[in-house]
Amino acid sequence: MTDLYAPKKSDKFTFGLWTVGNTGRDPFGAPVREPLDPKEIVSKLSSLGAFGVNLHDNDLVPIDATPKERDKIVKEFKKALADHDMLVPMATTNLFSDPIFKDGAFTSSNPSVRAYAVQKAMSGMDLGAELGAKIYVFWGGREGSETDACRDPRDAAKWFREALNFLCEYSIKQNYGYKFALEAKPNEPRGDIYLATTGAMLGFIATLDHSDMVGVNPEVAHEVMAGLNFTHQVAQAIEAGKLFHIDLNAQKIGRYDQDLRFGSEDVKGAFFLVKLLEDSGYLGSRHFDCHPYRTEDASGVWDFASGCMRTYLILKEKVRRFREDPEIQGLLSEIRFQSEAAGSGAPDWKALLKAYSQKNASSVKGYKFNRNSIAEKGLHYEKLDQLVMDLLLGAR
Amino acid sequence: MTDLYAPKKSDKFTFGLWTVGNTGRDPFGAPVREPLDPKEIVSKLSSLGAFGVNLHDNDLVPIDATPKERDKIVKEFKKALADHDMLVPMATTNLFSDPIFKDGAFTSSNPSVRAYAVQKAMSGMDLGAELGAKIYVFWGGREGSETDACRDPRDAAKWFREALNFLCEYSIKQNYGYKFALEAKPNEPRGDIYLATTGAMLGFIATLDHSDMVGVNPEVAHEVMAGLNFTHQVAQAIEAGKLFHIDLNAQKIGRYDQDLRFGSEDVKGAFFLVKLLEDSGYLGSRHFDCHPYRTEDASGVWDFASGCMRTYLILKEKVRRFREDPEIQGLLSEIRFQSEAAGSGAPDWKALLKAYSQKNASSVKGYKFNRNSIAEKGLHYEKLDQLVMDLLLGAR
Amino acid sequence: MTDLYAPKKSDKFTFGLWTVGNTGRDPFGAPVREPLDPKEIVSKLSSLGAFGVNLHDNDLVPIDATPKERDKIVKEFKKALADHDMLVPMATTNLFSDPIFKDGAFTSSNPSVRAYAVQKAMSGMDLGAELGAKIYVFWGGREGSETDACRDPRDAAKWFREALNFLCEYSIKQNYGYKFALEAKPNEPRGDIYLATTGAMLGFIATLDHSDMVGVNPEVAHEVMAGLNFTHQVAQAIEAGKLFHIDLNAQKIGRYDQDLRFGSEDVKGAFFLVKLLEDSGYLGSRHFDCHPYRTEDASGVWDFASGCMRTYLILKEKVRRFREDPEIQGLLSEIRFQSEAAGSGAPDWKALLKAYSQKNASSVKGYKFNRNSIAEKGLHYEKLDQLVMDLLLGAR
Amino acid sequence: MTDLYAPKKSDKFTFGLWTVGNTGRDPFGAPVREPLDPKEIVSKLSSLGAFGVNLHDNDLVPIDATPKERDKIVKEFKKALADHDMLVPMATTNLFSDPIFKDGAFTSSNPSVRAYAVQKAMSGMDLGAELGAKIYVFWGGREGSETDACRDPRDAAKWFREALNFLCEYSIKQNYGYKFALEAKPNEPRGDIYLATTGAMLGFIATLDHSDMVGVNPEVAHEVMAGLNFTHQVAQAIEAGKLFHIDLNAQKIGRYDQDLRFGSEDVKGAFFLVKLLEDSGYLGSRHFDCHPYRTEDASGVWDFASGCMRTYLILKEKVRRFREDPEIQGLLSEIRFQSEAAGSGAPDWKALLKAYSQKNASSVKGYKFNRNSIAEKGLHYEKLDQLVMDLLLGAR
Repeated sequence: MTDLYAPKKSDKFTFGLWTVGNTGRDPFGAPVREPLDPKEIVSKLSSLGAFGVNLHDNDLVPIDATPKERDKIVKEFKKALADHDMLVPMATTNLFSDPIFKDGAFTSSNPSVRAYAVQKAMSGMDLGAELGAKIYVFWGGREGSETDACRDPRDAAKWFREALNFLCEYSIKQNYGYKFALEAKPNEPRGDIYLATTGAMLGFIATLDHSDMVGVNPEVAHEVMAGLNFTHQVAQAIEAGKLFHIDLNAQKIGRYDQDLRFGSEDVKGAFFLVKLLEDSGYLGSRHFDCHPYRTEDASGVWDFASGCMRTYLILKEKVRRFREDPEIQGLLSEIRFQSEAAGSGAPDWKALLKAYSQKNASSVKGYKFNRNSIAEKGLHYEKLDQLVMDLLLGAR
Repeated sequence: MTDLYAPKKSDKFTFGLWTVGNTGRDPFGAPVREPLDPKEIVSKLSSLGAFGVNLHDNDLVPIDATPKERDKIVKEFKKALADHDMLVPMATTNLFSDPIFKDGAFTSSNPSVRAYAVQKAMSGMDLGAELGAKIYVFWGGREGSETDACRDPRDAAKWFREALNFLCEYSIKQNYGYKFALEAKPNEPRGDIYLATTGAMLGFIATLDHSDMVGVNPEVAHEVMAGLNFTHQVAQAIEAGKLFHIDLNAQKIGRYDQDLRFGSEDVKGAFFLVKLLEDSGYLGSRHFDCHPYRTEDASGVWDFASGCMRTYLILKEKVRRFREDPEIQGLLSEIRFQSEAAGSGAPDWKALLKAYSQKNASSVKGYKFNRNSIAEKGLHYEKLDQLVMDLLLGAR
Repeated sequence: MTDLYAPKKSDKFTFGLWTVGNTGRDPFGAPVREPLDPKEIVSKLSSLGAFGVNLHDNDLVPIDATPKERDKIVKEFKKALADHDMLVPMATTNLFSDPIFKDGAFTSSNPSVRAYAVQKAMSGMDLGAELGAKIYVFWGGREGSETDACRDPRDAAKWFREALNFLCEYSIKQNYGYKFALEAKPNEPRGDIYLATTGAMLGFIATLDHSDMVGVNPEVAHEVMAGLNFTHQVAQAIEAGKLFHIDLNAQKIGRYDQDLRFGSEDVKGAFFLVKLLEDSGYLGSRHFDCHPYRTEDASGVWDFASGCMRTYLILKEKVRRFREDPEIQGLLSEIRFQSEAAGSGAPDWKALLKAYSQKNASSVKGYKFNRNSIAEKGLHYEKLDQLVMDLLLGAR
Repeated sequence: MTDLYAPKKSDKFTFGLWTVGNTGRDPFGAPVREPLDPKEIVSKLSSLGAFGVNLHDNDLVPIDATPKERDKIVKEFKKALADHDMLVPMATTNLFSDPIFKDGAFTSSNPSVRAYAVQKAMSGMDLGAELGAKIYVFWGGREGSETDACRDPRDAAKWFREALNFLCEYSIKQNYGYKFALEAKPNEPRGDIYLATTGAMLGFIATLDHSDMVGVNPEVAHEVMAGLNFTHQVAQAIEAGKLFHIDLNAQKIGRYDQDLRFGSEDVKGAFFLVKLLEDSGYLGSRHFDCHPYRTEDASGVWDFASGCMRTYLILKEKVRRFREDPEIQGLLSEIRFQSEAAGSGAPDWKALLKAYSQKNASSVKGYKFNRNSIAEKGLHYEKLDQLVMDLLLGAR
């Protein structure tokens, strides 16, 4: 049984350097673990079955490193990647830790800060490109406000757009081949963060100069903090051709950013997410953006990493069984057939609704529906959901 | 002082027939008020200072009315409108009350239900047009799920798009001149509703055939339920040219849909919202979508309606004073000047970031920023926010 | 496998008449199912394996029934109970549906309403006693406010205490032998409900005249609405000897009252709850207070009821396996041993902390702890939690 | 106008050293301000009008200070207090920052940790007593869990009780004269914290050996995080004689612990809180437990502190005006009179409900209430609440 859930390179699992490298510092307490060397992370994750690592610029290169120091670090890191057959599919910029970003980066009211943020992003893109990354993520952790007296939120949108348009051009001119993936979060560390949901990012992308090269990087915890159904948000992105990357973790609704081990909360939600990713043929990384409990030492860190991948694979296997379960599929067929037949003798509504024509409109408008007979049919969703629970709990 | 806050037609206040007409039924209790005649609502609201009423098809015309009954009702209602100098700027379809919609309308898995929903929307559009409405709102209260086993959420998106494309064409072909305004809600009455936020709607609109004629109708309570900063969501819509209508009310975060009197929760949030609407030159209705407490009788209903308009006007007056307050404006100038000057002697970052060029990129990339000197400057936002509180509390 | 999870009378499963009898009415829609006859509910639930039903007075007897009508209904209902070997372990009063309770029952500012509520509760207690109930639940659905201008919340506490003291005496004098179980809820249908959590009820009980006969009836959904860990709240009640009844269902955090099928959300939380109930030797009913999705017809109602019981039994079986799993128990032992040994050579802290004495205090105060060596030990909770997930998912 | 809101010693405003001393570090960013010397805090707060400061042991004395270092620090600090006429009304222990507490202090499964926590609390109590504190607060920031596999929550309750019983005795034997004030929080930094609400603390206190000397220290942000009405929680504590201290700040529901400036969110809630404190004759400190935005430098810190006190005083003045407003008081009288009169000709319900007797019970039980006539009366709460909003907004 263990073998069934052993991660393989083809599963495309990745972790951020900052995830397993998290030292357990929080607002009320000091670090509990030593920082890990990025090269050690690469080695260990490879041995556990991951196929890559992702990074912020400063996860690898300190913010005040000289060019020489930087190059040395990068060279050694690339060797570690090669030694352990690991990729860097995604890179990103840390635009939130340094105090200069205390009131935002691309949306700071201070043009110097905006310029510095763009500079830092260009350098981060250089670094990512050197490491082979093809996805570049933008998470604007400080792009927000505690009081809206400070700034017109429409200005924030304009400045954010300017920065992204600028950086799209930079990527194109450098031939970096990046796809940009925008990551939303509703709050924390700011009182409110602009463009708070994946949906808002999709709306925003439509207003960019190079909207074709920009998509989203939804994160479970970020949408769940706001109580949203994560699978629905990801489905919208996929359906619009905009799911360029994904951050997997777990979170309770309405709470500080927990970044829990994937699948350790809301098992049913995690199942439908994995189902969607697998059903849709999503080809990108399964990236874990979470961190171990603060109760853990170094060995607990790797238990955590293994757990993320294992639960994904357990759920993936359940997806396969969902597809092949005769009772589940039979019930789904029955529901579907009943629905289709509900207006039996009726026009082919599917065809009629597909495209407007005056004739189609007349057919729809003139039809006498029997509301009651359609409404009174039960849909068997309690039974269907219980079958899913049985499947998830190993009781079928 | 009373006169200052007396509503005028030019304030463009509207109420839904269903708001003041709410009978106080809830999941745990029976109605506490008699239904009001729509004509009485028109008369009373006009006398209180509103300039219009909005309606769902069945707020005016019962779902099973014969064409003859319908025409009589509409005729009398139009007379009431004319008698009281009232408009119907917006209309919408009830696609949620009848049991036929128990699993959705445009996103039902049952094509008959989808067809019926489209039929009902076309009839609703006919009604709205007859009453002079130019905005047509779509709120999909039942477009969602309790278990995602029932449907692929990507199918829901496809069906919703089909319906909207169809109805856009219908509007165009009928020369109704409608603008469509999509209204999002995260949950209730469904466990999760598709396209859960105004942001998600903006993303979705970009995928429609006639995206130009489709915008949003954000509702305070709906975004606040999810803990989102409503002003930020509205600002995104305005900045994208998509704020076609707005639903004003009040709500506590993370709670059942309360639809409270406008301004009765989160005064500061309400202030920044009014400020945004007034600063941006928003020309549409100030529509109240809320209902009186269940403790009220008929007279309390009109206290409620007056309170909504009064608080809006009080906050609008505070917006005026915010603009003219020398200390507030002085502090904003100081913050702004300090920001601009922060990199004094530096390039003109605003100009450089406006558009990418290799030269601009080089200027930005090669500059040596003094992170610490920029970071250490305080931004005075505590003081600024306290000045706003003083202004709101009448203490300045 | 089916047999393993077939409910038996000894499992002590009960349902409220109002749960399976729910007609699917909600704030946005009309009923979707016909009301069920209470006698039919008794018969059907018995055949599914329940051992009892619970009821509000008006679930059985209409609020305006004459004494003669009441007696006839009760007589027939008792026959149905006997015919189907079913009990009524718990009864309660509906103090929320009638408009008279629109501003509260025991906490209404109107003494007439308070008196009527006490009258109704006495009659309800008479009814419950006649049906053999030994637990009497108080859920004050309307005991709250939308604006705190209306009432000093300290008055509400006083009036609520008066009513409970009065009714305790009534039960004693009538020799009904009731234990009272107070049920908390944070909000809905009121903006805020007084004594909002199970914890608040425990604090309140300590101030009653007959606090010994009063305990709590925690409900999953009610604590989860507020984002609280339900298992922790129940554990506090059990540890204080106050868990007199329990309402099982499922709910997402920060949302309208969903009353979902037990176990259909937060599987891990449901597991730890079942574990606590089984570990603690709780002897009361496993009462389900939830209702079927609105998509269901009559057959879906019974699927729903079966699912509640089935998931409880699946989780109960997992609790047994948790206790017997050598790896889980080994890890728990290791954690415990490591903890105990952490200050090896140290005093017997457990004994010293058990009771204060100057000597014990000196021993504790004078000891030189090695903070770092204690702190650096990892606690293996990631591994432990993953083993639980594996167990829940049937992957071990 | 300024003078009206200038803080005086008699207003009993206090701040924690950790509040104005907060350096702005958060989970995503480095400190933005230098630490402040406690003596400087004392001096500055005194000049702004505070009457005292409160502290954790390690806010003043580093955890690894030698006795000699400690004594020197304390001596100098006492001098600063005296120089600036400042008190230390409350002290507490930091049982959360050091890694030794990563899995709890009094509720750690490791007896050594529990013993160390008790030791640290005894030393903290010594320190507090030396500084004149009479209130000793216990906030168990780490007393919780991320996975309930780790510990039976009933054990946590037992261990917490043991520790408090031990420390009560210690206080008594040392003649410190402390009152203990327990502070609840639902989550953060732990996934879930035991005894999550003020209500839960009240329930727990009833189980302590010296329950008379133990009360609560409710904090706005902590109850609001869970969406609870803070005023209701405080009212329960006051009514039970258990409000020993209070932590004032502001917070949005369902979000990370924000600790915002008092009154800067939920103005109406803040008003009803101040009203309750003033109406009830609460004599304790008005303690601010919050911190300045991360955008502030040192001067912003003091703007923040002034703002907390100013808003309290503005709201206190509004409370006075609420009491004297003829329209508000007239409406309240009308509501009250109408309520009393609702069953006119009826028995004196107030008297009858006050204490049970068979006669009283018969009077209540036998009365024929006219439900409809009581129910149909409107309660004017919309009007009342709007008058409150007008008052708060300075529009009356």
